[in-house]
Amino acid sequence: MEVKENTVSIEEDDQDSDGDKDSGRAKWYTDTILQSELADYAPVKGCMVIRPYGYALWEHIQKALDQMIKDTGHQNAYFPLLIPESFINKEKQHVEGFSHEFAVVTHGGGKKLEEPLIVRPTSETIINHMFAKWVHSWRDLPLLINQWANVVRWEMRTRLFLRTLEFLWQEGHTAHATADEAEEEAKKMLEVYRTLAEDWLALPVLTGEKTERERFAGAVRTYCIEALMRDGKALQAGTSHFLGQNFAKAFDIKFQSAEGGLEFAWQTSWGVSTRLVGAIVLGHGDEKGLILPPKIAPIQVVIVPIYKTDEEKAIVLEKCNQIAAELKAVARVHIDNRDNLTPGFKFNHWEQKGVPVRLNIGPKDVANNVVEIARRDTGEKIRGVSQTGLTNEVAGLLIAIQKNIFDKALEYRKQNTSSANDYSEFKKVVAEKGGFVEVYWDGSSEDEGKIKEETKATIRCIPFKQDQPEGKCMYTGKPTSRRAIFAKAY
Amino acid sequence: MEVKENTVSIEEDDQDSDGDKDSGRAKWYTDTILQSELADYAPVKGCMVIRPYGYALWEHIQKALDQMIKDTGHQNAYFPLLIPESFINKEKQHVEGFSHEFAVVTHGGGKKLEEPLIVRPTSETIINHMFAKWVHSWRDLPLLINQWANVVRWEMRTRLFLRTLEFLWQEGHTAHATADEAEEEAKKMLEVYRTLAEDWLALPVLTGEKTERERFAGAVRTYCIEALMRDGKALQAGTSHFLGQNFAKAFDIKFQSAEGGLEFAWQTSWGVSTRLVGAIVLGHGDEKGLILPPKIAPIQVVIVPIYKTDEEKAIVLEKCNQIAAELKAVARVHIDNRDNLTPGFKFNHWEQKGVPVRLNIGPKDVANNVVEIARRDTGEKIRGVSQTGLTNEVAGLLIAIQKNIFDKALEYRKQNTSSANDYSEFKKVVAEKGGFVEVYWDGSSEDEGKIKEETKATIRCIPFKQDQPEGKCMYTGKPTSRRAIFAKAY
Repeated sequence: MEVKENTVSIEEDDQDSDGDKDSGRAKWYTDTILQSELADYAPVKGCMVIRPYGYALWEHIQKALDQMIKDTGHQNAYFPLLIPESFINKEKQHVEGFSHEFAVVTHGGGKKLEEPLIVRPTSETIINHMFAKWVHSWRDLPLLINQWANVVRWEMRTRLFLRTLEFLWQEGHTAHATADEAEEEAKKMLEVYRTLAEDWLALPVLTGEKTERERFAGAVRTYCIEALMRDGKALQAGTSHFLGQNFAKAFDIKFQSAEGGLEFAWQTSWGVSTRLVGAIVLGHGDEKGLILPPKIAPIQVVIVPIYKTDEEKAIVLEKCNQIAAELKAVARVHIDNRDNLTPGFKFNHWEQKGVPVRLNIGPKDVANNVVEIARRDTGEKIRGVSQTGLTNEVAGLLIAIQKNIFDKALEYRKQNTSSANDYSEFKKVVAEKGGFVEVYWDGSSEDEGKIKEETKATIRCIPFKQDQPEGKCMYTGKPTSRRAIFAKAY
Repeated sequence: MEVKENTVSIEEDDQDSDGDKDSGRAKWYTDTILQSELADYAPVKGCMVIRPYGYALWEHIQKALDQMIKDTGHQNAYFPLLIPESFINKEKQHVEGFSHEFAVVTHGGGKKLEEPLIVRPTSETIINHMFAKWVHSWRDLPLLINQWANVVRWEMRTRLFLRTLEFLWQEGHTAHATADEAEEEAKKMLEVYRTLAEDWLALPVLTGEKTERERFAGAVRTYCIEALMRDGKALQAGTSHFLGQNFAKAFDIKFQSAEGGLEFAWQTSWGVSTRLVGAIVLGHGDEKGLILPPKIAPIQVVIVPIYKTDEEKAIVLEKCNQIAAELKAVARVHIDNRDNLTPGFKFNHWEQKGVPVRLNIGPKDVANNVVEIARRDTGEKIRGVSQTGLTNEVAGLLIAIQKNIFDKALEYRKQNTSSANDYSEFKKVVAEKGGFVEVYWDGSSEDEGKIKEETKATIRCIPFKQDQPEGKCMYTGKPTSRRAIFAKAY
């Protein structure tokens, strides 16, 4: 395959020399994704192919989140992929934030276009253009829309799932009659994201607000959930923006209020993406491969038949089928009946794929009415588990594993959250330990910039929870009662 | 809003003078979609916005089809949107078929690309490139992949849902060890599409093969389902292609056979799109608006409370809530409790939106323990239906409506399927009656072209079912036992 400059794959990025990427953990990350068949490199610059196992994982995340989005009153819709350049230029901060990442369609149907079309990097502009058409009265509000879509951002450095030229996501866009309502919406959706991360992905997250430096282009306030990966780096896992009236003014979204006046709407937008798959890999995995939280694992229980003779095979497979049929009431079950592979190979294969529970069943197990259970999260093997009551046993185990994976991640975060009282202490912690570093903070945007340059660490969020006494800013020394969380981040 | 040449909307296409489009039915189609809020014009050439009601309909279609795709052993995956131009050029017929419809990305991240990227019009090329990487042995086959995605084809004449620059679809792509297996797969998936159309969308379809003229660019054989719309025009509702080894040879998909030889894989691809929403509108709707088949209707039962005083309102709404809670076990229910609209307005509103069953509940109904049921498909009103046993009543009614809508469409097709023995008879039928015209056919591709030019009718399919005696080709007069179905088509 001839590869031209603009079809450089992520593969080459991953092989670049880069302090972080050359680390064993970076290689482990890439190898784990490729070998567990979550994704593959695509022959297109910065793009990847999400393979069936990775896509099934995404589908389970989607299903959980889609239900929560609908339960909070939102409706799905679909807006065009290609956005006229003039639309994106309407909100000044927005275009400044995104213009260097545009993929531009200049030709269509064999002809040069008069106005270029931008492949959507996010859909505020096209969606708010439509909102202006639909919103007339306070009775049309709130307007609560969500879209599941692909977006393209021309990223220079890419990494499977974490940062790709094209990615899949959902983007919520809402319009409200008052600032308070919009503010409440932005925080409500952040809480939905926290629930998704903690209760489904088993990833504990900090919730808080971004500083101006890290704010979404066009937002008044950006809220976020931040997770800590097992290499001590932070990952922004979802954001929710209070947009104020910025886009409403740019796109003329006005409504007649109940009192009869004409007012601009107040808005939010919020999104999470396939990056969450990367968060699961980096947040839970170990040297053997993936560790998937049961609630979103495509396969929750894999059954490996063990036999030597054809006679044993017949007896064992019959029992495996019977047990699988029973377990299907409580779990997503797969029988690995490939006959050209050894049980040992299969054990490794399913461990690498992070399947939470493995049942090994041999002729003796059949005779004794038992199975062997192997837990992926602890590596524990439990022999001689009775087949009677196995369904309840497995259902309970899946709940216990989900909890254990979360607890381990939370414990890791506790062990890797430090505090620092001054900048020299801060630098030492960032360089030697990594993780979240909690500090008193009263610095400026410029100060943040300097710290990033010197340490690579950025402010991940100003946590909502601020209940400490007054202290001194670790950088400026000024008195403040506000604390911020710093970390090196993906 | 300033609209440049290349951001001409579908709206302007719809307003063009064109024999077919100026017809009352064409205006009815557009008005119905806009007024029922299935979709809206987008400010981007040839694109539309799928509004929440239309998207919910699509989600129900997706859900039914996705389950059937998975039940037949396929797995979902996701491949890049942007395809290097050199990839598409690899299969000669394929590029000839699609190159005039390309949307081309020439710039990314502020720089001109060395090789342009095509926004996928369909994904055979990128997917088969990956298949070549994944398929090595007969053990890797069959490879059964499906993708839910957006695609872009630079269409000159667009129409809401039926033909838009960008549309949503699923595309299946499979690789097999033998021609027979691939052939069986192509027909199996056509049967899935037939089931979707008939059992879910209540649209009877003909199944058969396309002639060479209408074949998918790069396919050996194209199978299709063809539905008849209520204006006598045909609509291709889904296609399934036997690709032979065309793409396998272009992309070098080879595998080691069980016997040890090296062979090219045999392949299929198949797809249905958001065009199906247009088929539902045109296939069932009447002068009042949409008529939605219950199985895919976003709202199956709407409850309209009727009251004059606040006291009545309280009593009626309480009863509506209670009935809605009970009905939720068997149906998707919505209570229209907007208090600024009259019941009459609401009746029209929900009729236009095609909701299958409406329950009207007033104070007297509450007192008498009854409701009034209005059927959208027949217009029938049934007064005094007891609230006791209402859940079973409604469940049964939804099944009856689904069947009735299908039966009516089938009856319409019967009434509008003619036969013609010679070309002059054929021309008369096409011009005066429309509908499907069944004829003996032994003509050439050129003959088809001439007929299309003269009558606008094309061969929709050569039906699988061919049990007639020998006759004479209506165009060439040559003896043949093959019959073909002609119609004017969308």
